[in-house]
Formats: sequence, C-alpha cells, structure tokens
Amino acid sequence: MHDEIIQMLQEKQFSKARNEILTYNEADIAEILEEVIADIGIEKAIILFRMLPKDISSDVFSFLSSESQLEIINGITDKEIQYIVDELYFDDMIDLLEELPANVVKKILSRTDKEKRNLINQFLAYPVDSAGSLMTIEYVDLKKEMTAKEAIQYLKQHGVSKETIYTCYVMDEGRRLEGIVPLRTLILSDDDKKLSEIMNTDVIYVHAHDDQEEIIRVFQKYDFIALPVVDKENRLVGIITIDDIVDVIEQENTEDFQKMAALVPSEKLYLDSGVLLLARQRIPWLLILMFSSILTGVIIGKFELILSQVISLVTFLPMVMGTGGNAGAQSSTLVIRGMAVGDIRLTDIFWVIWKEIRVSVVVGIALSLVNFIRIYWLQGDSMIMAFTVSLSLFLVILSAKVIGGTLPIIAKKIGIDPAIMANPLIASLTDLISVTIYFVLATILLGIG
Amino acid sequence: MHDEIIQMLQEKQFSKARNEILTYNEADIAEILEEVIADIGIEKAIILFRMLPKDISSDVFSFLSSESQLEIINGITDKEIQYIVDELYFDDMIDLLEELPANVVKKILSRTDKEKRNLINQFLAYPVDSAGSLMTIEYVDLKKEMTAKEAIQYLKQHGVSKETIYTCYVMDEGRRLEGIVPLRTLILSDDDKKLSEIMNTDVIYVHAHDDQEEIIRVFQKYDFIALPVVDKENRLVGIITIDDIVDVIEQENTEDFQKMAALVPSEKLYLDSGVLLLARQRIPWLLILMFSSILTGVIIGKFELILSQVISLVTFLPMVMGTGGNAGAQSSTLVIRGMAVGDIRLTDIFWVIWKEIRVSVVVGIALSLVNFIRIYWLQGDSMIMAFTVSLSLFLVILSAKVIGGTLPIIAKKIGIDPAIMANPLIASLTDLISVTIYFVLATILLGIG
Repeated sequence: MHDEIIQMLQEKQFSKARNEILTYNEADIAEILEEVIADIGIEKAIILFRMLPKDISSDVFSFLSSESQLEIINGITDKEIQYIVDELYFDDMIDLLEELPANVVKKILSRTDKEKRNLINQFLAYPVDSAGSLMTIEYVDLKKEMTAKEAIQYLKQHGVSKETIYTCYVMDEGRRLEGIVPLRTLILSDDDKKLSEIMNTDVIYVHAHDDQEEIIRVFQKYDFIALPVVDKENRLVGIITIDDIVDVIEQENTEDFQKMAALVPSEKLYLDSGVLLLARQRIPWLLILMFSSILTGVIIGKFELILSQVISLVTFLPMVMGTGGNAGAQSSTLVIRGMAVGDIRLTDIFWVIWKEIRVSVVVGIALSLVNFIRIYWLQGDSMIMAFTVSLSLFLVILSAKVIGGTLPIIAKKIGIDPAIMANPLIASLTDLISVTIYFVLATILLGIG
Repeated sequence: MHDEIIQMLQEKQFSKARNEILTYNEADIAEILEEVIADIGIEKAIILFRMLPKDISSDVFSFLSSESQLEIINGITDKEIQYIVDELYFDDMIDLLEELPANVVKKILSRTDKEKRNLINQFLAYPVDSAGSLMTIEYVDLKKEMTAKEAIQYLKQHGVSKETIYTCYVMDEGRRLEGIVPLRTLILSDDDKKLSEIMNTDVIYVHAHDDQEEIIRVFQKYDFIALPVVDKENRLVGIITIDDIVDVIEQENTEDFQKMAALVPSEKLYLDSGVLLLARQRIPWLLILMFSSILTGVIIGKFELILSQVISLVTFLPMVMGTGGNAGAQSSTLVIRGMAVGDIRLTDIFWVIWKEIRVSVVVGIALSLVNFIRIYWLQGDSMIMAFTVSLSLFLVILSAKVIGGTLPIIAKKIGIDPAIMANPLIASLTDLISVTIYFVLATILLGIG
C-alpha cells in the first residue's frame, strides 16, 4: 500500500520518507509505521519515528498497536519515553503503562510528580473491563457562577490539553457533579447567561466500577459523545469519550464471537498471534466437547443390538444429530445476542420458552415432512422407517430449540457468560438428546429389542 | 421499571404522568413510552405523547423503535405528523420515511417544498447499507475567508438546527470540500485568524455509495466524531455522525452473529418477532444443511460392510465428527472476524493456510494423544482401534482447520459474505470429510473389506 515509503527507507532516504509521511493524518502515519515494522523491521521504523516532530510523534504513538508501542519503547531513550508518556492523554498513558514491563513503569513513575503518580496508581487499580479503566481525566470543569462568555474564555486558556471540550462539567467545591454544559449550548447562548441557568442538571453518569458492557448501552441509548464517571461519593473522577467506546464495542463483540466458537478469548489479532497461543486458545474447549461427544458414543453403544439388526439406522444419524445441533444453535445465538443488546432479560425466560416451542412446531413440521417424503417416496424406504426418522427429527428440533433458548438465560442467571452456551456446547448437549430420542424411538417403532 | 407512571396512566392521571416523565431525558421518555405501549396499549401512549411539549416530542420520537413510530404516526393527526417530520433531523426523517407506508409518505412529501422534496427523493434512492443512507444534511458550512470570530458568529446564527457543530466544513463556490475546522480549533485560536490558516486541508472523506462497513473502519481508525460524505464530483452532500455509527456497528455485528448461526438475518428484535418470521429465518439453512448431512449418511452407507463387522466403530463417530466440526468452526470464526475488523486480507490466504496447518499439528497431536490413552489404556480397546481413531482425529482436525481457515477468504474473493462460512456450514462440510477419512482408515487399518 505504501510501497514508495518502504522503498525510500530501504534506500535510507529517511528525510524524504519523513517529509512524505508528514502529509498524512496521524492515524495513517501509525498504519505506515506498522507496515514498516512488518515489512522491513523495527529498526527502520524507530529511525523514522524519532524523526517525527514531537507533537506529532506522541499522537502517532497513541494510534499504534500495543505490540508496536512496546517495540518502539524498547528502541528509544528514556528521555524520549518520558516525553511520550507526558504528552499522551491520560487514558492512553494508562493503557500503555498496563502493557509495559514493571521495571520500565517504575522508571517512568519515579520521574512523575507525586500527585500524578498517585492518580496513575489509582487508575491502574481499576478492573480491566470497568468504566474506570476506560476513562480519562482531561475534561473541562466549570463553576456554575461563570457566564457563558467567561466559560468560553476559560476554555481558551485551559482547553488545549483536554481530550474533549465539547461537553463541559459543572462541579461544586466537593467536586460533586452539578450539571453539564455542551459546548454547543455555550456557543449558542447569550454571553452573559450564567451557567446555572443553561446547564443541564439531569445528568446521566456511570460509576467507576460499572462494567463496560453497561457503558456501551448508555452511549447507545443517549447518543452521547462523552459520559461522566463518578466515584462512590458521587465525585467526578473522569470522563469516557465515544471514540474509545467504538473500540470497546468491537472488542466485546470479538470476545463474544470467540466464546461462541468454543475459543478461549484473546484480544491479540489473528495474524499477530503465534501458533502456540492459537493452539492454547483452541485445545481446552475441544477437549471438553470431545468428552461430551464420547458420552454420545457411549449412548449409541447401548443400542448396538438394534443397530446391528438395522444397520441403515446409522445413515440417518448425521442428519438427526446435525439438524438438532443447528436448530439449537439458531435459538441460542438469537437469545445470546438478544441479551447482549439488552432486548431479552432474565425475566423473559418463559416468553422465550413459549416462543421457541411454537417456532419449533412450525420448523419441526416443515423439516419432518420434507424428510418423510424423501425417505418414503424418493428413497423407497419403509414407511415405518420414514416415520421413525421424521418423528425423531421433530422431537429433536423441539428439545434442541427449547434447550438452546433457555440455557443462555439460565447461564446468565447463575453468573456464567451466556456466550459460552452457543453452537458448540449446545450442539454437544443436543447430540446426547438426539441419539437417545432416535434410538429409543427406533427400538419401539421398529419393534426390535 | 416505571410502574408509577403506568399506574398514573391507568388511573387516567395524564397531566400528572406528563409532569413526571418530563423530568427524564428524551431517550428515557422514549423508553417509558415503549413500556406503556407494551403494557397498557398504544392508545394511552399516544395521549401521553401528544401532551409533550412539541420540541421535546420530536426528539422523543427519534428515539423510538420504528414499530412504535409507525403506531404513533397512525394515531395522530396529519398536522402533528407534519410537525414531527419537519423537526426531525434529516437522517432520522429519511429513516422514518423509509418505514412509512407509501400513501403516508406521499401525503407528507406533497406538503414539503420542492427543493427539500427533491433532496428527500435523492436520499431515499441511496442503497440501504451505503454512506448515503446514513448521512444527514444538517452541517455547518463555512467559507475560508471568514475569521475565527466571524465563524463563531455565523455558528451562533445558523448552528441551532445542525446535528453537530463540532466539526465545520469549509467549501468553495462549487460546494467542493476545501477543509475542515473542528469547533475546538475555532474556539482555541485567535479571533482574527482566517479559516484558510487554521483549517485542516488533509480531509478524510467517504463517497455516498461506500458501504457502511468501510465507514465503520474509517471512524475506528481516525477516532472522528463526524465524517464528510461527497458525491462523484467530490461535492459535499452530507455528513455522518458517530452516534449513528455506534448503532450501525451493533447492527452489523448482529447480522454477522445471525449469519454465522445459519439464520437468515433479520433486524427485528427477537421479542418483537412473530413465530412465523422466526420460523422463516430458520428453515432455509436447516434444509440446506439437512441435505448436506444426508450426503454424510450416504457416505456412511457405503461403508455398511465394515460397520456391520465392527459395530463399535459407530461409537467413535460422534467424537470424530464433532471434533472436526468444532475445530473447523474455531478457525473459520477467527478468520471471519479477522476479515470483518480488517486484520486479515484476501492476500493473506497463504499465511492463514500455513498458520492453520501448524496450529492443527499442535492441536491434533494433543487431542489424538488424549484419545489414544483413553481408548487403549482406560477403555481397554485394541491398540489398532485406538490408533485408527486417533489418526483419523488428527487428519480430521488438520483438514477441518485448513478448510475452516480458507473458505471464508475464498467466499469473500468471489463475492459471497464470509460470515456464511461459519460453524454450521463448515461443520457440515467437515462431516463429509470426517466420515470419509474415518471409514477409509478403518477399512485399511482394521484389515477388513
């Protein structure tokens, strides 16, 4: 994509490359640096990075992946590290410190003044997925006695290093939040209006220990671009901005996709992950599910007698088991997603069961019918065989869909992540039920055993 | 949740209920109205809605689900409809018009002035998932000759009805985009600076026909809160704001979750969907996958001879097939997600294959070993049987992972949505391969046939 720049670097035309990339946006420069690291190595990337103007380099740094950030940190001087750390927004700095090795963090903290150091330590202590770990401290705080004009004046003096100035926060002496004033309101109102007259006192806020999934819902519901975070005493401790939320949403979704495919979640991108990491992500659930399918085999073993008499029963087995698994997975996915986006609540469990029963009847009849026609008319098998397979299929779909719809809700109720109850696990469970239903029915209807 | 308000309405204390809900944020009022509709019916909700102050009612309206919007539209006068349509932001209005029945749309358009009507028709023509269908026309346009002070003055006069004033757009006479000025820059710069001096001319923009997935990537990459949209002649035609993007991200993810669970995607929430809609979402793929599993059955049928001789082979079948399906699903999910977030590209296909081969070897050896120990030592089966099953398992995992990792990329290359290539389809395909490998190996190694 940026072959010319790569070529310039290979030909050691560093100044030319530098001037070229400075025509790009900081996010693009970060992307180019990632390419340089991947294609021709970290050394050239560091040379290029150090040639950037300082105010740009810290911005670019914040757009880099944490792997690349670490590699660059390892290649630059302590003084340069210190500069970057000082220039980063507080939330980006916390993210970086969380990734850095302890000795580097210690060195950085030793050069930071005491007040900031205490703040950093407090932020590092918030749980990973909490509001506290997402927030930044660079917000504009105003007093309600100010006029709109004074507030704008204050912004001009103090706003430069704030992550967002588009929502300003009005606090009392105890740093308790009294109201918010969007910059829009400030601009559009008369100069001499007092903030107490124009501020919005019906403030929506979250607590520092709230889970990030809740934060996502709040942003979605209210269409905010920033959200205040308070501590237990309702004092404002930080704000969360929407650009970070966009990343968190994708991260939460990726986690759900991975859990729903029987993977141990990992935030590392696929192409960046080593073979052993990928294997470790996959083996645990494959083992668990393997044991479940061994149990299915044991059940089949119990019916060896009827199997040996009607060996063709085996040929319908993949269809009955497969359809059961797929039918259950459909239901569980809809319910898991419904809970994730806040549509389905724990108390809806009986609604879900009732709905799944009715849907199963429709789906079950449709599929059993198709199947009966195929086995009896097209394949020319006996009617009793066609009936056995079709009735099994109907009962398997019914139980799979009820189980698939219910288990995620029960999981959430007892504190297990519902995403676990997706396709692989549901399919394993329905396999057990499928073979039981199928062989019991076969034993009864085919009159053997 | 809002039981008191529901009770007030049931006791016909409408004014009291109105005063109570007016203490809430507009998004909350919309949520309460949804509850009223669900719990005591649309009539009471409409009475309450009509009692809201007009400026609040249109805001509340924009937060309602499209089903509730339609129900309310059906219960209020044409004049009230007209008022709401006029007050909605342009993008919300377009969304509403897309949902309304044709005769209502016609009535509304007949009362709209010609210029706006043409604009509406143009917007209605954009493809559903395009940038054009997401954008709004309420943005601030400035001229580069203005000073910062003049620009702010202009904002004070024209900014009220703009969806965002936080990013302003500088255009030439031909409405071609020359630069952007964040409000932040305007506020923080000297009053008499010309916009041409402070505007950012390296503007990132998208085209009206770009797909919304690309738009999401742009927002994620650059941390924007608004993004300009241009037409083929590079004229600014609208802007997209981040609050809409947050909704689009969740919508795209929901679509992927559904496709990956063999569901025909539907935007309707689970609890709002009727039984027949849910059945229609599920039957098509279940039928397709059923036929694939019938094929698996046919293959098993070909090996009836060896099966009848070694009936215990059946008991290992669920484990071999199940593990193959799960192993393939893990790989396909990682690759599908990797492509969705822009990590994996079409050209990475050989990297993916090579990585999957190596991961399969690690995973395959681990699982086969566990399996061998179980069958030979714990279960006391013959060594040749343990070896047959374990070797099959290894080969099945290897092929499943390579197929699971490759098919999504191939799908994308030929223009099929890669999300289709997820668990159910991959599992069906690997089933075919699993039974073939298993029975061929059994025939050879167990020396029968």
